[in-house]
Amino acid sequence: MVKAAVMEAPERPVQVVEFPEPVLEPGGVVLRTLFSEVCGTDVHLWHGRLAEVPYPIIPGHINVGEVEATGGEVRDADGEVLKPGDVVTFLDVHGTCHRCWYCEVAKASTRCPNRRVYGITYSARDGLLGGWSEKIYLKPGVRIVKVPSNVPPEAIIGGGCGLPTAFHAVERGGVGLAASVVVQGSGPVGLNAALLSILAGACQVILVGAPALRLEFARSLGVDEVINIEEVPVDERVQRVKALTGGRGADIVIEATGVPAALKEGLAMARDCGTYVVVGQYTDHGEVTLNPHWDINKKHVDIRGTWGIDFSHFYRALKVLAKHNGRIRWERFITRRYSLAEANQALADVEAQKVIKAVIDPRAPF
Amino acid sequence: MVKAAVMEAPERPVQVVEFPEPVLEPGGVVLRTLFSEVCGTDVHLWHGRLAEVPYPIIPGHINVGEVEATGGEVRDADGEVLKPGDVVTFLDVHGTCHRCWYCEVAKASTRCPNRRVYGITYSARDGLLGGWSEKIYLKPGVRIVKVPSNVPPEAIIGGGCGLPTAFHAVERGGVGLAASVVVQGSGPVGLNAALLSILAGACQVILVGAPALRLEFARSLGVDEVINIEEVPVDERVQRVKALTGGRGADIVIEATGVPAALKEGLAMARDCGTYVVVGQYTDHGEVTLNPHWDINKKHVDIRGTWGIDFSHFYRALKVLAKHNGRIRWERFITRRYSLAEANQALADVEAQKVIKAVIDPRAPF
Amino acid sequence: MVKAAVMEAPERPVQVVEFPEPVLEPGGVVLRTLFSEVCGTDVHLWHGRLAEVPYPIIPGHINVGEVEATGGEVRDADGEVLKPGDVVTFLDVHGTCHRCWYCEVAKASTRCPNRRVYGITYSARDGLLGGWSEKIYLKPGVRIVKVPSNVPPEAIIGGGCGLPTAFHAVERGGVGLAASVVVQGSGPVGLNAALLSILAGACQVILVGAPALRLEFARSLGVDEVINIEEVPVDERVQRVKALTGGRGADIVIEATGVPAALKEGLAMARDCGTYVVVGQYTDHGEVTLNPHWDINKKHVDIRGTWGIDFSHFYRALKVLAKHNGRIRWERFITRRYSLAEANQALADVEAQKVIKAVIDPRAPF
Amino acid sequence: MVKAAVMEAPERPVQVVEFPEPVLEPGGVVLRTLFSEVCGTDVHLWHGRLAEVPYPIIPGHINVGEVEATGGEVRDADGEVLKPGDVVTFLDVHGTCHRCWYCEVAKASTRCPNRRVYGITYSARDGLLGGWSEKIYLKPGVRIVKVPSNVPPEAIIGGGCGLPTAFHAVERGGVGLAASVVVQGSGPVGLNAALLSILAGACQVILVGAPALRLEFARSLGVDEVINIEEVPVDERVQRVKALTGGRGADIVIEATGVPAALKEGLAMARDCGTYVVVGQYTDHGEVTLNPHWDINKKHVDIRGTWGIDFSHFYRALKVLAKHNGRIRWERFITRRYSLAEANQALADVEAQKVIKAVIDPRAPF
Repeated sequence: MVKAAVMEAPERPVQVVEFPEPVLEPGGVVLRTLFSEVCGTDVHLWHGRLAEVPYPIIPGHINVGEVEATGGEVRDADGEVLKPGDVVTFLDVHGTCHRCWYCEVAKASTRCPNRRVYGITYSARDGLLGGWSEKIYLKPGVRIVKVPSNVPPEAIIGGGCGLPTAFHAVERGGVGLAASVVVQGSGPVGLNAALLSILAGACQVILVGAPALRLEFARSLGVDEVINIEEVPVDERVQRVKALTGGRGADIVIEATGVPAALKEGLAMARDCGTYVVVGQYTDHGEVTLNPHWDINKKHVDIRGTWGIDFSHFYRALKVLAKHNGRIRWERFITRRYSLAEANQALADVEAQKVIKAVIDPRAPF
Repeated sequence: MVKAAVMEAPERPVQVVEFPEPVLEPGGVVLRTLFSEVCGTDVHLWHGRLAEVPYPIIPGHINVGEVEATGGEVRDADGEVLKPGDVVTFLDVHGTCHRCWYCEVAKASTRCPNRRVYGITYSARDGLLGGWSEKIYLKPGVRIVKVPSNVPPEAIIGGGCGLPTAFHAVERGGVGLAASVVVQGSGPVGLNAALLSILAGACQVILVGAPALRLEFARSLGVDEVINIEEVPVDERVQRVKALTGGRGADIVIEATGVPAALKEGLAMARDCGTYVVVGQYTDHGEVTLNPHWDINKKHVDIRGTWGIDFSHFYRALKVLAKHNGRIRWERFITRRYSLAEANQALADVEAQKVIKAVIDPRAPF
Repeated sequence: MVKAAVMEAPERPVQVVEFPEPVLEPGGVVLRTLFSEVCGTDVHLWHGRLAEVPYPIIPGHINVGEVEATGGEVRDADGEVLKPGDVVTFLDVHGTCHRCWYCEVAKASTRCPNRRVYGITYSARDGLLGGWSEKIYLKPGVRIVKVPSNVPPEAIIGGGCGLPTAFHAVERGGVGLAASVVVQGSGPVGLNAALLSILAGACQVILVGAPALRLEFARSLGVDEVINIEEVPVDERVQRVKALTGGRGADIVIEATGVPAALKEGLAMARDCGTYVVVGQYTDHGEVTLNPHWDINKKHVDIRGTWGIDFSHFYRALKVLAKHNGRIRWERFITRRYSLAEANQALADVEAQKVIKAVIDPRAPF
Repeated sequence: MVKAAVMEAPERPVQVVEFPEPVLEPGGVVLRTLFSEVCGTDVHLWHGRLAEVPYPIIPGHINVGEVEATGGEVRDADGEVLKPGDVVTFLDVHGTCHRCWYCEVAKASTRCPNRRVYGITYSARDGLLGGWSEKIYLKPGVRIVKVPSNVPPEAIIGGGCGLPTAFHAVERGGVGLAASVVVQGSGPVGLNAALLSILAGACQVILVGAPALRLEFARSLGVDEVINIEEVPVDERVQRVKALTGGRGADIVIEATGVPAALKEGLAMARDCGTYVVVGQYTDHGEVTLNPHWDINKKHVDIRGTWGIDFSHFYRALKVLAKHNGRIRWERFITRRYSLAEANQALADVEAQKVIKAVIDPRAPF
């Protein structure tokens, strides 16, 4: 039997449940889970804030595991054959159809209506399709990437879904050499967006967030300036960004807060003809009031909504992680490890921002 | 002496005033005005809605005239020497510095703080620097384009500032072959945006506006569908656009209304991963409430504020006009001509939307 | 039994052969062929100029047919269920894997090593997988598009593979409003590239090709200028283009010739900082000598190789055809129809450029 | 009197000549030269390989100096007033007209026919318009940037013209996070292109060049792999790049060699659908033979000629230098300093590749 932490319904405690061993199809893979992420999305799931979630679910969308068995020859994204014992991670998004109008005409696969997501839109009734579990079943076609031997598995979770999401945001923002960047939000997406902006050549990265501990961590990643929203009121934050950017505002501002009001503030922090990336509004937290003349038209700004990731973001974000982990050590994002039985505590700690990144270790004793 | 219609201050009647003949500097040009545009911006000027306008002013920013004299050899944008009698038009924006950070580092010259605009930000105290006048003085460096002999001068005013502004909007929207486009607004910018979308290869152009007369005119330009906002309520408008676009919304939506609430409606009309161009919010008409999750982030939309034009838009828009005028006949946008003494009537008619395009003819008898 | 024209090996006459009726799999479709294209690629196939072709083959990659039967519910690209009697066309490229590095990381599916092409890389041993046949078998997953009722099926073949290929080239070239464009080559790709450039808003389209009949046809499509390479030597051709483009050369030059030397000439026809699209070098016809300083570096030119098409090009090109066919009438590209038994004659006529577009009509009596 | 090193004609020894003190116009600036670059272009000038050079000239296009006097209030690019004693550098390109078709319609100012270049296209007869001189006269309108106090003036010359040229090339190549990059050439442009690729987030940078000393220097900059063209034959070089890039070739290849044959080799090193930047073909060194089918069309490659720089490249490259110089120390590119009297030796050493970067120090005793 396989133990997994199950979220049976919104607002109910997560329970550890036993499942039968997964049955391998041709092309499928069984993983022994090493680590699984706990992220803000899991808190949203816990509170029932996402639509069309087929509870009960096994949460955990970013995972790292060891190959236990494969259904015949299965290859990773680089075409290498997977062997038992290989340490791998995989893209949680599965089932992108490559046939619908969005996939094929608009080339906008993140809006494919057929995509499913491990740990979010697969039901526990359908099997071990989430990472808070001793084992994960990878259906045929799941996109698998081997973890390089010089990368500790924890680093994959330290990056978590924040890393590829931030990669997408930084790409949408066009961050490059000499850019000035403001990142709003100091959660995993915001911290990774700041870090990736630095790695992409930005010459000035300003992080606007809280609490102080996270801002200190941001500094250790190389962020040039931090502005603590618990200490500095909105108007002054905008003025400080202006003062740091020659009076103009930043070339690119990346919103990673989840707070609607952040848009008004962030647009004020962007320079005329700059770019504003909205990546943090993952769920509906209400509305914001904008002035289309001042905030958009006269500013000649580009505002770029940024939904989800595709495999390219995931794969390339891992390349960046593998390249720089020796120096950055993404495993430092992890504040605490939790056993399966401690999943409720993990969710509570993430919600309370007591941790930067929480990790489920299904091998940990109860 | 030269007669010109002067707007002495906001909310005061325009008066015809006599000015001394302009004094030619080297590189300057004196034009005998053939026609000058009256547009929505002039109504804004009349009501004092623009900041930092150095009243008294001679309005009229898009103009066509005949060269009377040049201060030595002066060349047009194609390098041809101007001769008396040449029929020309010119870019109203003058003085873009090509030295500031916006001009030179950001390459965003429409936000150059040093640019001045004929008919808007030049004072009548500084000379004949607007088109509601028998003559216009073109300072050295003004960007001049000859009007091809097969284009009637009226067509230049029929296009007016709406044509290059719409050119910029269509460029920002990335309208191209096979696109589906919604244009919100049936004023000169909206009508030209619809027309240029058709000329750029869009396969479906839907105009949302009013009144019926303008929508009929839009149909005559080749617009596929029109939706009359005086007859169809907001929700139904969105539903109709969805129904016309395979349930998805349009690839590109161009806002050309000046009404803040149009943004909420227009974003709902854009497909996921589509583009939304905001070009109509030229002055501050208040605010709009958006939901960042649904309207921007999950939609993965690009919102592109579009401010002003540069010479490239002006020049290329004229190329398009010269190419297609035989068939399109932009002079049809002109509903009525007005003498200098009738300028107040022209402003009233534009404000009341009695005309699509009003033209000042300074040669008309009083 | 089903009659099909089979190319058994390079340089051998095409023979009409009888095949058994196709066997429908779930998701498959049997078409009764209405028309199939004969294009330059088929001449290349006939002479064995393409690598890895699994002779014997049934040629015919662009086809239009009537649905005879479907293997269960099968939907077209717009999600509509296909019914017997529906007139459809389909993308010849099939089997793009959406899993390899090119598909998923580089998002460059036209270089996917797993793609197969109807009429080219499928063997007759595998079934009715080419259009020179009374019936065509569409494997599960083939991308099908319904032909609108106002479009005669012949128009689909009149556009042929030249239309979507030219669509791709025009997209790569960034042809848009006010552009000046030179197209080198007056075969189906070149003619469609010129036509699509016009439809995309180019204000000047110059076609360089031969023979005179094709250039006359080009004029009837709206091309502004033609230069006959049988009459005008290379240097003079370049000078004429320069003279027509203000001494600068064209904004965009599209090569659609198949002749290596065309690159040297075409680069000379492009303006500094212009774009040069290479789409005609479909097979290896040898080399060209360029001067990297003058032809590329100092010219600051973009050269864009353009290989194949993906479904988006195919789908959107059909949208353009459906929109404009009433006026353009792509069926006019067809010079002559051939029965299956006349396939060798069709190939000879295409090779001798006696026809603009040759069509196989499998229903024609022998 | 002011001493300057003058190149009187091609193939003649550079002589130190005395000039009168420069006369300040309003808006002009007199600099006391701190350091001036000697680069490959100066060797080309020495051998008369550039067209339309108005010998005699004072070479030296990238310079750093101390403000001696200004003609009234003169501001740097950030709008700050210049004071005597300020250490500054300036863009060598001057006189870009911002009025011609290339500047204003094509927005391609590097091809403006009116631009002049300090040290190259200004004659010594016109004054101290090159940097191999105790003083330099900056005409009104020259674009000046203050050197931050934490950057040693030598670092500006260590970067030299190679740094902004490479910045332009890296921008044209679209180098970003996770990219694999090959740089051909280990001169100042190639070394800076490799370095900037790393700083822009490339995960793999391979330098192909010689001699060994430069490759070692490249390694010290963080280049992942070097291939010595003195040791490894062409075919093997291509194979090695393929082997290092999953068999595909690099995403982006930047040519910085000046050798025409490099294009054939470099295209073979680029992956399908990759980008090839040609920046090193600054003068005419002859031709290269390409196969348009294999090298361009089937490869679906983008080839991007890259000419000169504009102020944006210069300004942003300096931002990058100021940001990273503490760690990179561009002054390490300087192998040796030369007095004005040693200018001929400097040219000989650059030509013989005995130095990476040679610097003229006009304050050095003879």
